[in-house]
Parts: sequence; C-alpha cells; structure tokens
Amino acid sequence: MGTVIVDVMPKPEILDPQGQAVGHALGKLGIDGFTEVRQGKRFALSVDGEVTEEALARAREAAERLLSNPVIEDVVSVRAEADA
Amino acid sequence: MGTVIVDVMPKPEILDPQGQAVGHALGKLGIDGFTEVRQGKRFALSVDGEVTEEALARAREAAERLLSNPVIEDVVSVRAEADA
Repeated sequence: MGTVIVDVMPKPEILDPQGQAVGHALGKLGIDGFTEVRQGKRFALSVDGEVTEEALARAREAAERLLSNPVIEDVVSVRAEADA
Repeated sequence: MGTVIVDVMPKPEILDPQGQAVGHALGKLGIDGFTEVRQGKRFALSVDGEVTEEALARAREAAERLLSNPVIEDVVSVRAEADA
C-alpha cells in the first residue's frame, strides 16, 4: 500500500498565532533557541498499490481544492512517502 | 537561516475523524481512489544559522514534550528542512 504525503503551511506573510503560541510555550518549558515556530498540516493519503503519477496528480488536485486554503496557505510538498 | 521540520501524525490505531471527514469531502468533489486519509501536523522551527545536531536534539525534545501528545500521536520525523 502506498501513501502520498501532502504538506500545507501558512504563507510566510501570514501571521500564524498557533505557531506563535507554540513558540511561547517552548520558551516556558526552557526549550530556547528557535527564532520562529510555524504550524501547518500534514496529510497522508493512502492508495492501493504503488503511488503512480496519476495518484500524485489526484493528490495535487486534492491539495489545491480541499487540503489548503490558497488565500492563506501554501502547498509545500506533494510526494510519495518513500521519497520523504 | 535553518529550519527544523517536525512531523506529527495520529497513531495508526487511533481513529482520525478529521482525516475521515477530509476523505469523505474528497469523494464528494469527485476525487476518488484514496483508501484512507489521515491528518497530522507539521511544525517548522527556525534557528539562526545552520541546523546543528544540538538544534535537532532540542527539536526532538520539543516534539516529545509539547508538539505531540504521546497517547494518541507519533512523532514521525524530526529533520533539517534541506533533508526533506
């Protein structure tokens, strides 16, 4: 069984309060040294059999139409899991 | 500036209603062929300069202590962004 991984992140110019909250919480835990934290989404789409070019094309369509909001998010990666 | 990427996914044995909802919505959009959809989180932790082994160690600690809930989630990857 193959898996397509789709990574979606907030656009660099968009404020990411969720990531900022994580960054502040890290500081309170004493985990310092990260200048910025941004939080996005990772989707694992399973297919029967190998990940074909056609499955990747469908995953790209899914990423653009449903998995990301193009106003505020970028699809940063659509790839077969083994490529990770 | 370097970036550490942390990927967190729901454990395989845990029900993922968010991923299921995405899977159903894909079907309604006519995007078929995915047998399962699971949704997790992707964090981008920025550091000044290169990503060092020490920064990766701090990111692993962050992943275990804050970015994931070990009861229901797995940290599937902690790596420098260029390795992606």
